[in-house]
Amino acid sequence: MDQQKATNITWHEGSIQRKERHENMGQKGVTLWMSGLSGSGKSTIAVALEQVLLQRGKHAYRLDGDNVRHGLNKNLGFSPDDRAENIRRIGEVAKLFADGGIITIASFISPYTADRDSVRKLHDEGDLPFFEVYVDAPLDVAESRDPKGLYKKARAGEIKGFTGIDDPYEEPSQPELHLRTDQLSIEESVQKLLNLLDERGLLIP
Amino acid sequence: MDQQKATNITWHEGSIQRKERHENMGQKGVTLWMSGLSGSGKSTIAVALEQVLLQRGKHAYRLDGDNVRHGLNKNLGFSPDDRAENIRRIGEVAKLFADGGIITIASFISPYTADRDSVRKLHDEGDLPFFEVYVDAPLDVAESRDPKGLYKKARAGEIKGFTGIDDPYEEPSQPELHLRTDQLSIEESVQKLLNLLDERGLLIP
Repeated sequence: MDQQKATNITWHEGSIQRKERHENMGQKGVTLWMSGLSGSGKSTIAVALEQVLLQRGKHAYRLDGDNVRHGLNKNLGFSPDDRAENIRRIGEVAKLFADGGIITIASFISPYTADRDSVRKLHDEGDLPFFEVYVDAPLDVAESRDPKGLYKKARAGEIKGFTGIDDPYEEPSQPELHLRTDQLSIEESVQKLLNLLDERGLLIP
Repeated sequence: MDQQKATNITWHEGSIQRKERHENMGQKGVTLWMSGLSGSGKSTIAVALEQVLLQRGKHAYRLDGDNVRHGLNKNLGFSPDDRAENIRRIGEVAKLFADGGIITIASFISPYTADRDSVRKLHDEGDLPFFEVYVDAPLDVAESRDPKGLYKKARAGEIKGFTGIDDPYEEPSQPELHLRTDQLSIEESVQKLLNLLDERGLLIP
């Protein structure tokens, strides 16, 4: 390799490759795509998983409505086109984070199969692992949790096109992981996610 | 803090804060925004800096045309609105990476002051460091390098609105770093970037 030297700076032609970047990070990048109804437990599980990964010295980052809807996607509404573009952009960002070597936890309702499949395809094309995680609680359970009071508003007609009420949730047909959050504790769900990462060789230093 | 325990999983209420994430990463996040003419040396310096940072065990990621124009921003053209939206989205993604604890090196011509200032404002609002790096070569030098043959096409009228030819480059008035790449070696430019990061406390473990 063509070496160029200065006092304490050595570099070579060509970019750092993903393999080097991931070795330096001590882990491989991956996107965990948490899909499910509002109130299904996506964020709760994502937050707990992030903590457990950090306790183990792993590097994780969460993408969710809090840091995306008011930032990157603040110029998108809720029309069909905008919903698709919302998920497309998040998928592209998750892919960049995974390329960077981060365990990327994306929590979005993402109700449409076509949109989720597009994100999977993006990752496949980029040779980056993508795991679809179906965070599944029956509608009545999710609605009874109603953490943000959104179901109440949707039932009252104050929110239109709300997933599960007057807009469909298309269930993942072949998710890498199916978490029945009405039957599993948060700890059990997190353990299943860790097992998935471990089985796929993504927790190896 | 409310502790919940399972066999080997412990988590607490509330999200991981940026401080914890950056401590786990062993560094703080920052955006280095490399702006300058095509051929000014942005990518060459970014590639060299990434290598040197990785040699030192730091975690860096480059955002550039290669991984953004054909991905996140593939649905944008070169109209004034699309150019602004191009930089806005990149700024939002850089902010997410910096929040994640990554030394984020964004290399884009980004010719307009207003667009760059918007990205700076985003970072200021998010309490994340943003360093504008003016990668400066005189037009005749940049044009003589013409690494992608774009100046030739612009002079021939095959590309319209090309920065430096028939579209303006608005020079940064107060960049954190001004690199005269017609006078500095790549090593010298990289050293100045390392010095900047070091002075601002961003290379401390």
